[in-house]
Amino acid sequence: MKERIDLRKEVREMAKKAKEVSHRLAHLSADKKNKALLEMAVALEKNKELLIEKNRKDLGALEKANLPSAMMDRLRLTPAVIQGMGEGIREVARLPDPVGEVVRMWRRPNGLMVGRMRIPIGVIGIIYESRPNVTADAAGLCLKSGNSVILRGGSEAFHSNQAIVHILQKAIRRIGLPEEAIQIFSRIEREAIQEMLQLEEEIDLIIPRGGEELIRFVTSHSKIPVIKHYKGVCHIFVDETANLEMATRVCLNAKVQRPGVCNAMETLLVHEKVARRFLPKIAEVLQKEGVEIRGCPKARKILSDIKEAKEEDWYEEYLDLILSIRVVKGIEEAIGHIATYGSLHTEAIITSDYENAQRFLKEVNSSCVLVNASTRFNDGFELGLGAEIGISTSKLHAFGPMGLEELTTTKFIVYGDGQIRG
Amino acid sequence: MKERIDLRKEVREMAKKAKEVSHRLAHLSADKKNKALLEMAVALEKNKELLIEKNRKDLGALEKANLPSAMMDRLRLTPAVIQGMGEGIREVARLPDPVGEVVRMWRRPNGLMVGRMRIPIGVIGIIYESRPNVTADAAGLCLKSGNSVILRGGSEAFHSNQAIVHILQKAIRRIGLPEEAIQIFSRIEREAIQEMLQLEEEIDLIIPRGGEELIRFVTSHSKIPVIKHYKGVCHIFVDETANLEMATRVCLNAKVQRPGVCNAMETLLVHEKVARRFLPKIAEVLQKEGVEIRGCPKARKILSDIKEAKEEDWYEEYLDLILSIRVVKGIEEAIGHIATYGSLHTEAIITSDYENAQRFLKEVNSSCVLVNASTRFNDGFELGLGAEIGISTSKLHAFGPMGLEELTTTKFIVYGDGQIRG
Repeated sequence: MKERIDLRKEVREMAKKAKEVSHRLAHLSADKKNKALLEMAVALEKNKELLIEKNRKDLGALEKANLPSAMMDRLRLTPAVIQGMGEGIREVARLPDPVGEVVRMWRRPNGLMVGRMRIPIGVIGIIYESRPNVTADAAGLCLKSGNSVILRGGSEAFHSNQAIVHILQKAIRRIGLPEEAIQIFSRIEREAIQEMLQLEEEIDLIIPRGGEELIRFVTSHSKIPVIKHYKGVCHIFVDETANLEMATRVCLNAKVQRPGVCNAMETLLVHEKVARRFLPKIAEVLQKEGVEIRGCPKARKILSDIKEAKEEDWYEEYLDLILSIRVVKGIEEAIGHIATYGSLHTEAIITSDYENAQRFLKEVNSSCVLVNASTRFNDGFELGLGAEIGISTSKLHAFGPMGLEELTTTKFIVYGDGQIRG
Repeated sequence: MKERIDLRKEVREMAKKAKEVSHRLAHLSADKKNKALLEMAVALEKNKELLIEKNRKDLGALEKANLPSAMMDRLRLTPAVIQGMGEGIREVARLPDPVGEVVRMWRRPNGLMVGRMRIPIGVIGIIYESRPNVTADAAGLCLKSGNSVILRGGSEAFHSNQAIVHILQKAIRRIGLPEEAIQIFSRIEREAIQEMLQLEEEIDLIIPRGGEELIRFVTSHSKIPVIKHYKGVCHIFVDETANLEMATRVCLNAKVQRPGVCNAMETLLVHEKVARRFLPKIAEVLQKEGVEIRGCPKARKILSDIKEAKEEDWYEEYLDLILSIRVVKGIEEAIGHIATYGSLHTEAIITSDYENAQRFLKEVNSSCVLVNASTRFNDGFELGLGAEIGISTSKLHAFGPMGLEELTTTKFIVYGDGQIRG
């Protein structure tokens, strides 16, 4: 009981400080913020050895727990990974400052000049389970967009994350910024997350990044708005008129270039009129890359060596070298399948037909819809946002990759000369 | 228990239908939607008598309960009020369709054309306590923006709201649209709201409009994102260099033109250097309009006949002919006061000083910040959005008046010619 009270006090104290300094961060010049970001990048690189040493503590604990080596690899900090973290922050420094941008301005009949100006959101809580470089990325993006951030990383990277934040805090203090701009939980208990999710007066936005279970936990406990980064059950529909050479290249890329990420293709929909020509071809190149294929009855008539795709396969985000294939009657059925089984993440059509291209773009309301391009392009860098803090699958506020702009909101500003309302 | 299960089933059924039809609504042409809106407007006007009769049922129940006559007035449907509801819907029909607008489009180095296209949010739940015309307004705005809507009005207007929705449903059915586009709760139990707030798979957004207690209830029970429309503790700061004639006119307008609304001024901050000249003048015109003034010790030295403003007064949204006045040392203290006691709604400065005007606009991060104009302009119509479904005081997604655009989100669309990721 006493412990729970201490924990509550600690979390509230963090949130209060974050809110206090957020007012100051909101009005920093871009120059000042960029200076701080460059200092952060240098500090990470200078402290390589310390970071690798702290990281070894985390890795040691995981080794004892006999965790899969793929997970160990993701968590490992090497000189190259640390260099990459620094480079990432430098890139954020090079991006334009979103704060203060007037996105539009117009004059009213009574002479009032009305505009919408970008301002920071305020205090952002980020709850994540992934690699320690998320810590540096998130800190950089939040600082550049004038927000203070409260980080809660996974227990498996506890020492690494603590060390990264400590280094970043010291760096921004040298530039004269309050170190409370970047805070991290020093406790690992899940109760601490629950406490944080109650603080709607202090925290403006929660971004959970991790498995479905974590996201559901956060959504159901939070009084604070949550932007979800759920799974990506991404589809490609190969239309009757598709250039099959292009379709093969794009599907191969979407499935195997990096199968473990949310914008990789999970289900391939093929027009029945080209199934007989296309399926053997795509199956051959995919199987050569080690992809396991599961198919609907029609697909299995053409590809005799593949497994059956069960109903649950159509909902599945494999994040692995597995692909389910369904033969469809045409674009209508393809769009219907996506509406039923999709996760609103990323869908593409491969076609040479103008009307089907436009129809697919219009009727499929996922966060990113592509014509004749790989689903792997649904990414903040690739789409031109400069950076991303994740890919939102919630429609509110941000839908798709969240860059610096999506870490701001807009207020109305009005220039008058004495107008009153009649 | 059985009843609770029935209620749950009923609410889920509504939400499921709303989601089903939302896919169809998302792709309606503006022509079709406008035709439906005009039919809705005509139908309300044609059914004037029926509406007035149903409204009498609500009023009768309130009379028995001995409710304040101001409340009765707000709920009363007269031929003029019904005409106004129809006119409101016609105005929405005249506004441009936000759906399908490509807000920006750019080319990537690899040739991909990337754009952001507006799409409807999907299914919107609106929980309100106010006048029955909100029912018609909300239905019109949601239809125009391609969303399906689930309404839950207050029990005091139950019969009126049911009748309005029934008329609107019949109207859109005549145009060939599904009547499930506009649904209203046929149950009054608060448990029904609780059930609705769990349905994150079906409903995309909840907008509560009403008292603080309702909004807190909704926020703490909802798994669905909520856009809050909280109170407005709006400030005007009269600077040292203000044109005092203008300041008087603007402050009078902001306080008395319609004291019961959220963008009326509740606290007046006056620069100490002009307090002696300005306070007697403004007090005279306000008191002539029946305004009760409460002041800080400095203000009370100048205005001997006013009450003391207590600490809680600075937090208060009076929604009445009451004003609290504080004398401040300058813009710094004014901005500090607003940061401490404000509700992020609307704040104005009256000044002739260029630097203070710009500083106030920059540093005050309320949803609407004005220079030399009345706080009463923070309103969707007045700012030029064409219409509004409320004024958001949450920073996520929409901050300030929510018009048609704020009832949409954007998806990324990508035109490629076979690009793959390297």
